[in-house]
Amino acid sequence: MSELRLDPVSQRWVIIAQERDTRPDEYVAAPVQRVATDCPFCAGNEIVTPEAVAVYCTSHGPPHAGQPSNWQVRVVPNKYPAVRSDLNGPVREEMFGLRCSAAGVHEVIIEAPQHAASLTQLTADQVRLTWVAYRDRLSEHALDERWKYGQVFKNVGSAAGASIEHTHSQLIVLPHVPHEIQTELASCEWHFSKHGRSLFADILEQELVAGLRIVDQSERFVAFCPFASRFPYEVWVLPRTPAARFQRQPQGASNTAPSDEELGELGGFIQKLLTRMETVLNRPAYNFFLHTAPFDTLPYDYYHWHVEIFPRVTKAAGFEWGTGYFINPVSPEEAAAALRG
Amino acid sequence: MSELRLDPVSQRWVIIAQERDTRPDEYVAAPVQRVATDCPFCAGNEIVTPEAVAVYCTSHGPPHAGQPSNWQVRVVPNKYPAVRSDLNGPVREEMFGLRCSAAGVHEVIIEAPQHAASLTQLTADQVRLTWVAYRDRLSEHALDERWKYGQVFKNVGSAAGASIEHTHSQLIVLPHVPHEIQTELASCEWHFSKHGRSLFADILEQELVAGLRIVDQSERFVAFCPFASRFPYEVWVLPRTPAARFQRQPQGASNTAPSDEELGELGGFIQKLLTRMETVLNRPAYNFFLHTAPFDTLPYDYYHWHVEIFPRVTKAAGFEWGTGYFINPVSPEEAAAALRG
Repeated sequence: MSELRLDPVSQRWVIIAQERDTRPDEYVAAPVQRVATDCPFCAGNEIVTPEAVAVYCTSHGPPHAGQPSNWQVRVVPNKYPAVRSDLNGPVREEMFGLRCSAAGVHEVIIEAPQHAASLTQLTADQVRLTWVAYRDRLSEHALDERWKYGQVFKNVGSAAGASIEHTHSQLIVLPHVPHEIQTELASCEWHFSKHGRSLFADILEQELVAGLRIVDQSERFVAFCPFASRFPYEVWVLPRTPAARFQRQPQGASNTAPSDEELGELGGFIQKLLTRMETVLNRPAYNFFLHTAPFDTLPYDYYHWHVEIFPRVTKAAGFEWGTGYFINPVSPEEAAAALRG
Repeated sequence: MSELRLDPVSQRWVIIAQERDTRPDEYVAAPVQRVATDCPFCAGNEIVTPEAVAVYCTSHGPPHAGQPSNWQVRVVPNKYPAVRSDLNGPVREEMFGLRCSAAGVHEVIIEAPQHAASLTQLTADQVRLTWVAYRDRLSEHALDERWKYGQVFKNVGSAAGASIEHTHSQLIVLPHVPHEIQTELASCEWHFSKHGRSLFADILEQELVAGLRIVDQSERFVAFCPFASRFPYEVWVLPRTPAARFQRQPQGASNTAPSDEELGELGGFIQKLLTRMETVLNRPAYNFFLHTAPFDTLPYDYYHWHVEIFPRVTKAAGFEWGTGYFINPVSPEEAAAALRG
């Protein structure tokens, strides 16, 4: 039976409509072909990308300066940036909206020197260093007063918006706190003012009691399909111990950024999840993103950083774009059972 | 140069990043194949779909009762509905969100008896009757106090979420006013309270003066690429004479629904636009939707119904889903110039 569900974090309604999953589809898509003679992200081709802004070589050392040849994870400016740090200028009113230069930072995190199409093929070290790079790059940009938020995200496969196969992720640093984060912050603040507790902590606690949407657990992390999943097989990953910021706190407030060890566990936990997703859904295109508190120094004690992962097995269509509602033909309970195996 | 632009209607930021359009893409998608031996929407196969709720046969007559064989446009309940009118039940709190039956109405508007893959192949009569059907179905459902909003939308091509080729559109009637509409209403109300004018009328007037984003004009309608287009080649169609409701007013407030003649002009105007889009973009997948005022009887004098059309030439990826920002590699000024030809 179809249901409407409201997600308390994003304030988004979804229609869980399992009957939709049985509808016939006249269209058959051929597998997308990769047509590339060389890979700009493989070791040996470093000259093709802009000079690295951070390079991670060994298991436990700090990021290296220069361009060492034995890198494991390499962070470079995006060669085709959506935003640029050398832009600035006033915000002007125009057409009753606003217009300004697209100031910001757009970086690419190359997750391995060897050609790997999936992060499930990476070593534990490479996975850990990738998450260390996310934390470190966010932490560095948080020091710059021009920037208000950093969005780490990953696109895998053409249907998920990727244009390059070699496993990589991206960071776009922005001069505003984006709408989606503002909404989450407002929901969490409202919940805290009403209940004196963190919304994410409350959700996590109830999901662990209910059990039916839990996908996996490790010592420090829990993965579950959210109650009002907008996409089939959407999974959220939360730390058991709530923390507002994934990045290091620039000044003042307490530092809640995960340690290198915790990041190793997180990276491995997500790698295992994605391995399972690749098996169950036959290597789908997917996206994930990391939500964290803004770069300012407010405490945001009521907010939690978390990761949202969603394979692209359905397409947002006219209804979704027109209403902001999502139609999800796979219930999160069903999805969690499938991903648990 | 990249720009950030804020859309005053949806309050959505977009990054206009023309440099992104030059980035290489390793992936080449083969054309999607249609694999179907028969079409459920062609004349002669009426038995395959649920019984019609409205049938339009002739140029100027009212919708017919029964199942006449000489239909031109046929409205049927969706066989795989996302929402159903026989569902009801209380809204319950769960997981700090809400949960209820997916009550509503989900109908399919079949736009021609002959097999046509695109509405650009339809006769003027078929196009007009399709828009008459949109108005009439919305008007009928607006009489039912359970429903608060009706979303008319069209998905064309697999990449736009269509599963059937035969030209058709859909209507989903909902028990709430969706978030996107609430945001637009709030923006328009705020603008009206500040300026004493309609936001859409003000935008239209300034776009006509500026000219650079205008795509086409007819006696009663104007098409333009909005200042903060979230998608490449996004086009909005507005009537020159503002009107809140596309549907007939159930009771009380003045009736602003377009006449059959106006709908003929609107349908033809949009058909011409889509013909142009098919030529310029080589028959892209696309969506369009109709935004109108809610079903209640408030005046909404500050709001305008309008149509938003967008070909699916880019894909929303991790950044878009994570932030609510959109990256658009084609400026609306460029897009309008291309669509003007």
